Amino acid sequence: MNIPNKVAYLGPVGTYTHQAALNAYEEEGFQFEPQVEIKSVFDAVQNDIAIRGVVPVENSTNGAVMATLDLLADIQGRYPDIVVCGEVYFDVRHCLLGRSATRTESEWTSGRSPQTVNDPNAAGPKGTPRVSIKHIKRLYSHPQAWGQCTLFLDTFLTGVERVDTTSTSRAAELTASDSTGTSAAISSLSAAHVHGLEILAEGIQEKNDNKTRFFLIKKQNAQPSPFARPEQSHGTKDDYKSLVALTVRDRPGSLVEALAVFRDHDINLTSIQTRPSGTAPWNYTFVIEFVGLRAVQGGSVNRALADLGDVVEHVKWLGCWHKES
Amino acid sequence: MNIPNKVAYLGPVGTYTHQAALNAYEEEGFQFEPQVEIKSVFDAVQNDIAIRGVVPVENSTNGAVMATLDLLADIQGRYPDIVVCGEVYFDVRHCLLGRSATRTESEWTSGRSPQTVNDPNAAGPKGTPRVSIKHIKRLYSHPQAWGQCTLFLDTFLTGVERVDTTSTSRAAELTASDSTGTSAAISSLSAAHVHGLEILAEGIQEKNDNKTRFFLIKKQNAQPSPFARPEQSHGTKDDYKSLVALTVRDRPGSLVEALAVFRDHDINLTSIQTRPSGTAPWNYTFVIEFVGLRAVQGGSVNRALADLGDVVEHVKWLGCWHKES
Repeated sequence: MNIPNKVAYLGPVGTYTHQAALNAYEEEGFQFEPQVEIKSVFDAVQNDIAIRGVVPVENSTNGAVMATLDLLADIQGRYPDIVVCGEVYFDVRHCLLGRSATRTESEWTSGRSPQTVNDPNAAGPKGTPRVSIKHIKRLYSHPQAWGQCTLFLDTFLTGVERVDTTSTSRAAELTASDSTGTSAAISSLSAAHVHGLEILAEGIQEKNDNKTRFFLIKKQNAQPSPFARPEQSHGTKDDYKSLVALTVRDRPGSLVEALAVFRDHDINLTSIQTRPSGTAPWNYTFVIEFVGLRAVQGGSVNRALADLGDVVEHVKWLGCWHKES
Repeated sequence: MNIPNKVAYLGPVGTYTHQAALNAYEEEGFQFEPQVEIKSVFDAVQNDIAIRGVVPVENSTNGAVMATLDLLADIQGRYPDIVVCGEVYFDVRHCLLGRSATRTESEWTSGRSPQTVNDPNAAGPKGTPRVSIKHIKRLYSHPQAWGQCTLFLDTFLTGVERVDTTSTSRAAELTASDSTGTSAAISSLSAAHVHGLEILAEGIQEKNDNKTRFFLIKKQNAQPSPFARPEQSHGTKDDYKSLVALTVRDRPGSLVEALAVFRDHDINLTSIQTRPSGTAPWNYTFVIEFVGLRAVQGGSVNRALADLGDVVEHVKWLGCWHKES
C-alpha cells in the first residue's frame, strides 16, 4: 500500500507542535499537514492519510496532556494500530502579543517612559513588559499557558479577563481581530509575525527551562523512517522508554499487584496517570511509562508483559522509543 | 479566632460546584461565596476568609482536575494548612443552549418539522435536538464538556467551530450576548434560566451516569462542622479514603519502592497521578489516593507514612474523609 509521505501535526501553522514536527522530519522531505485537534492527528495516521503524526504529550511545567494519553489508551477502540515511535523536546517561549497604547497615553498612565519599564536591571519577573500594558482589558491563550506564566500575569495583569482558546495561534488571531487594541495574547514569537502583532513582552513563562515533549506516532508495522533521528535505534535498553495502558481487575489491591510486576522485573517506572476507563464510572485505565525496550526477545519487558497478563484485566502495548532527554 | 461562616466555591452562581456546595452545607446556614478560579477557593480558605471550600476534583468521563491536585500538592508552598475533609458527588447533565432558527427556516433546512426530530423513539445519541440546529455556527463550552458530549457533537454539530470558556456558565453568557443567534453553549439547565436561553437539546452527555466528584477542603485543625453529612465519622477504616503527595528520590526504581510500601501495609491504592514537582523539569510529584484512615493511632496508614518517610524525598499529608460512593 502506498501511504503518502505526509506528517500530520496539531496545527495551525506556527504552533510549537509544528516546530517539533519540522525538527523531527524536515530532512526526510515529508509534507506537513496541520490538523485542528489532537484526535484528527490520530485519525490521519490510523486511516493512512499520514505516515506519521506529531502530538504534544507533556509540558515540564503543566504536566501530561491527557487528551493524547486517552487517545493512545484508546478507550473507544478507534486507534488499535497506533504506537509511539519517538519523542521530541521543544523549548516553549511565550510572548505577550498585542498592540501598544499610543505613546502619549502610555506615558500618562504609567507616569514614566516605556524605556524605563524595559530596564533590564529592574527587579521583577522575567519578561518585564517593553511598553505600558495598562490598557489591556482581555487576554487570550490556551489554558496550559496561564499556568506557565502565573508570575507575570499576577504581577502585570492581575484581574484582567482571561479567555481560553484552543491554541496559542488562535489566541493571536483573536487578538489581531480586536480593533480596540485592548486585547492581548500569550502566544509564540512566530504567531506575532503571522498575525502582525507587536511583542509587548517576551519570555514571560515562569521557567526558562519550560519545555514541551511531543510524541511521534505511527501505525504498528508501518514502514520505518530510517533517516529520522528520533526514530533511530542505538544505545542500550536503558536508553529506551516504553508505554502501556492497563485496566486492573475490580478487587482491592489490584493496582499495587500490577505495579509489583514491574518491581519484580527491575523495571523503573517513570510516570503513572489514572484515567477513566470508559467502561463504567470510577473504573480506571492506568497509563504507565517505564524505562526499557521490547525489541529484545525474552527481555525483562517481555517477561513483565507476560506476567501482567496474569494479574490485570487488559494490557495494551503502546510502543517503545529512544529517549531524547 | 472568629472565622466567618462562609463556604467558598468555584463560581459563578449556578455552576455544578455551586450545587455541590449547597448539597454539602446548605443545612448549616453558611453563606456561599463564588470564586473566579479554583486557586481563589484555596486562597479564601488558607487566609481564613472562608471556613470551607468546595472544588471539583474528578469527572467520571474526563478524569482528574489537575488544577485541584496541584493546589493540594502545593508545589509553591502557598497552602500548607489545607486538607481534604469530605467529598460530594453531583450528576452532570449537559444541555445545548441557544436560540432556535425561525420556524420556517428550520423546516426548510431540515425538510421535516421540529417535532419529528424530537421523536423519542428515533434512533441516535441521547439528547437528540428538540429543534433544527443547522443554523449553529459556533459553540462555547468548558474544555471538559467537549469530551463529555463527543457522540452528540460528532453526530449533530460536526465541523462547527468550538470556543473554550472558563466555565459552562460563561459559555451561556457569551451565547446570550451573540445577537445573530448562531452561537450555542454546552451548559447546565440552570444557566438557561439565568441567561434567558432556549434549551435546544437536553442530556447530551455521552453517559447518563456522568458525575463529578468535588472535594470539601478546610484548614488542618479548623473547627469541625459536625452537622455536615459528608464530614461525619462512621463505619470502618475501609469506608475512608486518604490522600498524600510525594516526591521520590532521583534514582532508578524509587517510585516502585515507594508504592511497594503501600503493598507491604495492605493498603489499596485507588489513584495515582504524576505531576511536575516544580523544582526541576521532568521531576515529579505523585498524588496518591488510597483506602484507609489516619485517625487510628498505630494503624496501617500511620505505619505506611512512617515507612514512606524512609524511602521518599518528601511526603505531604492531604487529609482523609468518609467515602460517599
